[in-house]
Amino acid sequence: MHQDGPAAEAFDAVDVIRAKRDGSLLDGAQIDWVVDAYTRGVVAEEQMAALAMAIYLNGMDRTETGRWTQAMIASGERLDFSGLSRPTVDKHSTGGVGDKITLPLAPLVASYGVAVPQLSGRGLGHTGGTLDKLESIPGWRAALTNTQMMDALEHVGAVICQAGSGLAPADRLLYALRDVTGTVESIPLIASSIMSKKIAEGTGALVLDVKVGSGAFMKDVDDARELARTMVDLGTDAGVRTVALLTDMSTPLGLTVGNALEVRESVEVMQGGGPQDVVELTVALAVEMLAVAGRPHDADGVRHALVGGRALDKWREMIAEQGGDPRAPLPVAREREHVVADRDGVLSHLDALAVGVASWRLGAGRARKEDTVQAGAGIELFAKPGDAVRRGQHLMTLHTDTLDRVPRAVQALEGAWSIAAPDSEVTRTGVVLERVA
Amino acid sequence: MHQDGPAAEAFDAVDVIRAKRDGSLLDGAQIDWVVDAYTRGVVAEEQMAALAMAIYLNGMDRTETGRWTQAMIASGERLDFSGLSRPTVDKHSTGGVGDKITLPLAPLVASYGVAVPQLSGRGLGHTGGTLDKLESIPGWRAALTNTQMMDALEHVGAVICQAGSGLAPADRLLYALRDVTGTVESIPLIASSIMSKKIAEGTGALVLDVKVGSGAFMKDVDDARELARTMVDLGTDAGVRTVALLTDMSTPLGLTVGNALEVRESVEVMQGGGPQDVVELTVALAVEMLAVAGRPHDADGVRHALVGGRALDKWREMIAEQGGDPRAPLPVAREREHVVADRDGVLSHLDALAVGVASWRLGAGRARKEDTVQAGAGIELFAKPGDAVRRGQHLMTLHTDTLDRVPRAVQALEGAWSIAAPDSEVTRTGVVLERVA
Repeated sequence: MHQDGPAAEAFDAVDVIRAKRDGSLLDGAQIDWVVDAYTRGVVAEEQMAALAMAIYLNGMDRTETGRWTQAMIASGERLDFSGLSRPTVDKHSTGGVGDKITLPLAPLVASYGVAVPQLSGRGLGHTGGTLDKLESIPGWRAALTNTQMMDALEHVGAVICQAGSGLAPADRLLYALRDVTGTVESIPLIASSIMSKKIAEGTGALVLDVKVGSGAFMKDVDDARELARTMVDLGTDAGVRTVALLTDMSTPLGLTVGNALEVRESVEVMQGGGPQDVVELTVALAVEMLAVAGRPHDADGVRHALVGGRALDKWREMIAEQGGDPRAPLPVAREREHVVADRDGVLSHLDALAVGVASWRLGAGRARKEDTVQAGAGIELFAKPGDAVRRGQHLMTLHTDTLDRVPRAVQALEGAWSIAAPDSEVTRTGVVLERVA
Repeated sequence: MHQDGPAAEAFDAVDVIRAKRDGSLLDGAQIDWVVDAYTRGVVAEEQMAALAMAIYLNGMDRTETGRWTQAMIASGERLDFSGLSRPTVDKHSTGGVGDKITLPLAPLVASYGVAVPQLSGRGLGHTGGTLDKLESIPGWRAALTNTQMMDALEHVGAVICQAGSGLAPADRLLYALRDVTGTVESIPLIASSIMSKKIAEGTGALVLDVKVGSGAFMKDVDDARELARTMVDLGTDAGVRTVALLTDMSTPLGLTVGNALEVRESVEVMQGGGPQDVVELTVALAVEMLAVAGRPHDADGVRHALVGGRALDKWREMIAEQGGDPRAPLPVAREREHVVADRDGVLSHLDALAVGVASWRLGAGRARKEDTVQAGAGIELFAKPGDAVRRGQHLMTLHTDTLDRVPRAVQALEGAWSIAAPDSEVTRTGVVLERVA
């Protein structure tokens, strides 16, 4: 019946859906049309939902995924950093619990004369958002015009700001649809969603931090490796020098989860302190970013720049450029509750997802886009897996402005940690698991 | 994120979609909820589209399909024929080209004292609709109230009328959605769509005519057999005595395709004439219907009742009961065009789909629900596969009120027929291929 409808469109949505449903490869013209027609509202939400499920179940190959990504880029504007006097390099993390790495990393890399544009999002669910974290700094603002962003990149070198709505609008529509139709966890769709925005941003080089483990989107290393491979290929095919690290997200990164708490910890790292895993991952990512930007430096030198104060100077410039006061006291939550160890031993397990959900329930995250977050809410950890603990010591402190949120947070933490006998061997894994280039 | 939404509903649509996406069986409560919530508008079109695609690709087993069918029945009203003094038996055809069998069949079976409620639809695309055919009879009306239908069944025994919108409204919504989302050709969804309406109609017994071939929905016999098996199981599980015949639809049924043309041929059959395949299939289905209705009769007796005038008497009663004049002249199209044989030989192939599409383009069918049909339009055939033909003889006559429709009809017929050398053996297959009980 469909062949006799009005012929103004190049394709019929049902034909495209059927092709993918039946396991065929979509050709470039079909992909260009369906993404464009969806953005124009000609392909209906229910049609794209059926196509997304067919893609979920039957996949897309490298050529299809590349074309899909290009079609999403073509739905909106592209930024162009080629007028800058410095090379540009971007970093993207697939999201984790306690992942504040962008905060020390962007100024660290910028301190080497490389421009770092970090167009970020807000948190939803148990993973926090970089903008939410920075907004706990008095005066700091996330929204910049393209001109302000370019100025900041030219003068400071690092900018962390809100992604404009003009980049890949097809992806924004599709992401909202996938969220309600059970089609989120598709590697070609995840990869094209991330990469369409990153390529549209116009960066010359990109380092991906693909998280693996309970607190990450990818629960096992095989899936994470496939996602990393797909994204690296998409970047490479689009002329962006791209590298990915697979990094551990079975337990939270660092010792803090929550907005102001994570800013405080990031500053500690730039002052030469802070937790070892945050330092390690920041240095590893910085080394990769400098390499793909064409300014290679070894890990020892980069570590020194991080802990020796050079990143901190750049951080203060970057925060001040966006109206923030880098020396102002950070907000503190009104209420706190302690979780204590019930026996002597070794902390053998501390689940990232449970800690992320608990922090979210304390007020650090949002359940709906329109919710606000509490700047001071979150969780402070006093032990990580492998650390010895004593009966009665604080394992965590829960921070919130609203005490009635505590019971549900405590509920989320049930079974989230365990203490082994005092003489147990608990393997500490390094944070970087693999590199995909 | 979904676990923290408002908890007024028993399930979350995304969880149900994910379960089917990941290959799980849906449990009864999930199916009841998702069908009901979709009918209430709580499950959105795009969510049902994703679920339909997951069902298309991952299937539903007998238990799931039965529950899905019951949930669609529960979305609307049920008719109850148990107050009638006669047993009831219904027939359903999956749709074909030239399929006018309901017209002689319903009065034939009713002439044995069995009530035949035929709640029918209109044609869409290349397959005609029984109501469109009967509406070519001056005065006849398709719309009856439930009371009028019951009266007609009690007094005449046969009624062919429009299905009320109160039966299985979930199916109506879902069918429209499947049509635009490439999820029509799913055996569990087709079977539950057909059977939900038939079971809701309240018939005690049912005979299914599952068409196989180019002009049918099912192109090959394995798919048709699976569909028949699924529907017979659904009927049986719901307490309806159900039998299916697989019948040939590689070439049109009879020698006419089009509304008034098919009425005329049906009357010819009841007058003792008409094409052999129409007689054969009408008798075969009548024998099955009488058997499942508990009034078994052999084929010879039934054939005699059909060609001897008994079905014709009942036909006239049935048409008159719904305001039609069974003796009024039938409409004739204003224009006609002939297709002639280009050489002597044996007609070896005459494609049902092509003839159906050509008839539709001549005005006998509709492309959109709101279109009207031409009562006189259609195609008359003068040879069927296996018949000898002579160069220059008429193979078909195209009937239409609008000459400008002819070129596209002729285009549809390109390659639709072929003539083999005069001494060729062309196998004539019987119309009934298999029986599934």
